[in-house]
Amino acid sequence: MTSTSGSSTHSPVETAAVVAHGRIDVGDAVEQVQAVAERSGVELVDEPERAQLAVAVGGDGTILRTLARLLGTGVPVIGINFGFLASIAPERLDDDLTRVFAGEYRTIEQPTLEAQLDGKTFVAVNDVVATSSTLGRMIELGWTIAGEDLGVVSCDGMICSTPSGSTAYNLSNGGPVLVRGLDAMAITFIAPHSLDARPLVVPRGAELTVRNATPDVGAAVLADGHRSGDLAPEGALSIRLGEQRSLLATLPETTFFGRYRETFTS
Amino acid sequence: MTSTSGSSTHSPVETAAVVAHGRIDVGDAVEQVQAVAERSGVELVDEPERAQLAVAVGGDGTILRTLARLLGTGVPVIGINFGFLASIAPERLDDDLTRVFAGEYRTIEQPTLEAQLDGKTFVAVNDVVATSSTLGRMIELGWTIAGEDLGVVSCDGMICSTPSGSTAYNLSNGGPVLVRGLDAMAITFIAPHSLDARPLVVPRGAELTVRNATPDVGAAVLADGHRSGDLAPEGALSIRLGEQRSLLATLPETTFFGRYRETFTS
Amino acid sequence: MTSTSGSSTHSPVETAAVVAHGRIDVGDAVEQVQAVAERSGVELVDEPERAQLAVAVGGDGTILRTLARLLGTGVPVIGINFGFLASIAPERLDDDLTRVFAGEYRTIEQPTLEAQLDGKTFVAVNDVVATSSTLGRMIELGWTIAGEDLGVVSCDGMICSTPSGSTAYNLSNGGPVLVRGLDAMAITFIAPHSLDARPLVVPRGAELTVRNATPDVGAAVLADGHRSGDLAPEGALSIRLGEQRSLLATLPETTFFGRYRETFTS
Amino acid sequence: MTSTSGSSTHSPVETAAVVAHGRIDVGDAVEQVQAVAERSGVELVDEPERAQLAVAVGGDGTILRTLARLLGTGVPVIGINFGFLASIAPERLDDDLTRVFAGEYRTIEQPTLEAQLDGKTFVAVNDVVATSSTLGRMIELGWTIAGEDLGVVSCDGMICSTPSGSTAYNLSNGGPVLVRGLDAMAITFIAPHSLDARPLVVPRGAELTVRNATPDVGAAVLADGHRSGDLAPEGALSIRLGEQRSLLATLPETTFFGRYRETFTS
Repeated sequence: MTSTSGSSTHSPVETAAVVAHGRIDVGDAVEQVQAVAERSGVELVDEPERAQLAVAVGGDGTILRTLARLLGTGVPVIGINFGFLASIAPERLDDDLTRVFAGEYRTIEQPTLEAQLDGKTFVAVNDVVATSSTLGRMIELGWTIAGEDLGVVSCDGMICSTPSGSTAYNLSNGGPVLVRGLDAMAITFIAPHSLDARPLVVPRGAELTVRNATPDVGAAVLADGHRSGDLAPEGALSIRLGEQRSLLATLPETTFFGRYRETFTS
Repeated sequence: MTSTSGSSTHSPVETAAVVAHGRIDVGDAVEQVQAVAERSGVELVDEPERAQLAVAVGGDGTILRTLARLLGTGVPVIGINFGFLASIAPERLDDDLTRVFAGEYRTIEQPTLEAQLDGKTFVAVNDVVATSSTLGRMIELGWTIAGEDLGVVSCDGMICSTPSGSTAYNLSNGGPVLVRGLDAMAITFIAPHSLDARPLVVPRGAELTVRNATPDVGAAVLADGHRSGDLAPEGALSIRLGEQRSLLATLPETTFFGRYRETFTS
Repeated sequence: MTSTSGSSTHSPVETAAVVAHGRIDVGDAVEQVQAVAERSGVELVDEPERAQLAVAVGGDGTILRTLARLLGTGVPVIGINFGFLASIAPERLDDDLTRVFAGEYRTIEQPTLEAQLDGKTFVAVNDVVATSSTLGRMIELGWTIAGEDLGVVSCDGMICSTPSGSTAYNLSNGGPVLVRGLDAMAITFIAPHSLDARPLVVPRGAELTVRNATPDVGAAVLADGHRSGDLAPEGALSIRLGEQRSLLATLPETTFFGRYRETFTS
Repeated sequence: MTSTSGSSTHSPVETAAVVAHGRIDVGDAVEQVQAVAERSGVELVDEPERAQLAVAVGGDGTILRTLARLLGTGVPVIGINFGFLASIAPERLDDDLTRVFAGEYRTIEQPTLEAQLDGKTFVAVNDVVATSSTLGRMIELGWTIAGEDLGVVSCDGMICSTPSGSTAYNLSNGGPVLVRGLDAMAITFIAPHSLDARPLVVPRGAELTVRNATPDVGAAVLADGHRSGDLAPEGALSIRLGEQRSLLATLPETTFFGRYRETFTS
């Protein structure tokens, strides 16, 4: 598939940065990364923007934030944890990271989303979600794609996801899996009251706009799970595939379908 | 079906009460109800508990709250509005309400839910929902039915609904329609990350317990859309079909399938 | 739940019958059953109708046919195999069947379906399915429940299932799980073209009729997977919960949820 | 979106061909087409391959077969009927076809599928389906995408569809809508017994192979609803996006979302 770089051999890594935060304690893993770096002759730098490779230690949230932060820098991110995006399991950290530092990894370019809300632009690596901000209250969302009006749907919210986000919240809400290499985004409603609202997949170039048509209930807008703003009544949000692509580094043997099978099938 | 009273002719109504509140202006409809009552020789009383019939004017929320308030009193509730539970459309108010006040209606007994949370008991006519109270954060819900442990599901929440609630939020989340007359409750997860969590229908007598197994995210508990309490980490909520039944009054010609067809099919 | 006999201790079994057929070779298992019977002092008789207990060796199909054959006789059926309905796994045959023959089992009564087609009546333990008999051609099915017309649905077919059948073909088509003890049937369309056709659960007493409204495509009617007749254009099929209940014997520790969890969750 | 030709004005049509067959009587419509052609100075030729435009009169099946027949010829197809693919409704035939013959139409290029089975190659405009050829028997399908093994799924069958086919049988089975302009195919299982089989969308270049892993049940392979061959036990079928694109002609004002909204939402 076209977005995976053909080669899986790089020059040995000379500089790397560790990014670790989040709700769970990852101190041990960070120490292991430092030890492997020392043994491998890799210099650890503070700013990931100036490294050749960023090592994100934590959950999928940490990896997503690191991917988003490094958009446009050309620095790939490798994840260490149990999440779907992770490439290295903690118990194999020593062996696998040694291989990666020796240049044995490949880089996967994946589409991102670019959203506009209240004059601000923001990006998302996995998904942008507009969701009722009042517990127990539905919202009415008007939507258009490529300028065509598609009506109004009563729902809890709407998810617009990239291929990498398609196996996350999109899938939980009945959306399809977009296989790596597809240059498209999926649009899936959350708990639609209209029985005929079905997931759609739209190609690059088609912009989605979402309007909050509820007179008295606000909506929150989340990018990769973090609140980016509010969609007040009559407010509008637009989303399209962005110019930039995220760079996920993986072990050469890690494949999309392998991860999918491990995660979702018994 | 057994829960519908066979007869659809009652004695003429002598006392009625109007219940009207909510977010929408219903002043005109209330005045019409008063005029019809006067013409029909029906005395309007203030406390619905002491009337023969309660007339709920507003959305489904108003009808639900009136049904819940009158549980155990034997006073049936007739709804005037556009919601699924309503029996009389506003534009037919004069004719239809005159018929109802003349005794031309029937009463439908429907199961309710009884829930326990933190030592408090509350009832619901439509549904009890446990849902993450933090935007963008999933929760882990452990569940048991009739004492048997069914594991833990990562999700946004869980819905337990009566037959009357089955066409509301339950349906939006992929749950089945429970036809009038069924003495059962449906259990449906909201956005489950586990692909094998499917809606279940359980008979009277089987109690559901739900435990918040998330260390750091609280859940809110809603009964008929109103917040009834919180499910803190490790907190537990139990739900079963209750002893009391709600009493919905409808025009004799209104049927479950007729309402279903009008609302959901084109 | 009410349909499970409270006690799980019976008198020791004196007479049993082995029912074994189907597509797979079960000769070894049958020999083991015979050996256990001999050791346990159980007389094996040829006609299961005259035994105290029938031992069905084979897939779920074998167990279903044995349950159907023995309806009304009071003879429970215990299944030996890997299917969902089975109680005894082949590798535990010796130990578990010895316990059963000693009286250590319980009997579960479950609703059946009674169907009428072209003047013939037949029963099903799991499900009755009406399905297009021409590959690649949809059919139009008109349906009514309890005498009310519900319109016409373009689809591949329709499934009406008992609680025991709800975890089989019904579940594969998006229908709900009906928990043991529920006296109801589920109605689920197969590949409906109408986006608003949703699974329904109906109580005992509500009859379903299905009419083939396709001018030029016939439908086949299957009971528990076996062809029972044809639904020619304009032909009608009626289905309701039957008077008879099937009798499934299980080990005392086997529960519905236990089987469900083992089969469907990872 | 890239696959729609920008311009919607063509030179007036000089030669056209009428293709009409199928199960329904279309004699009147054909006569109308001939009358409009005469008035518009359009010569009707017998072989659509030699015309500038083919007018397909009939159901979606007729339009699909005409699209498939004309692959590679550069001759676009305009449909007259009630199907989803049709551009002209019969009651507007005179006016709309006169406009089309005057050059007022646009041509939409859409991806096709290329399949290989038993050494034969065939194409499909909408979908290729592999489905159990024995009523009431599931099949086991092994599948790989881009050479990666994805395991075996127990099901009634599998659908591989183009964007134009995504609103047909794919949608009835829970698959996503692929919006016009997407260069991808959707893979959706029919009645999967595995609860974790979800629809996938794969980009051009990723080949799907399907293997019948059932020892004793054959599968039929249908292209656009017509039987193209059989998938015997252990037989394999491969499907990928084809080199050729179908050419659907529509009125300039007909849009994908317009058709979708008319057909699927109320």
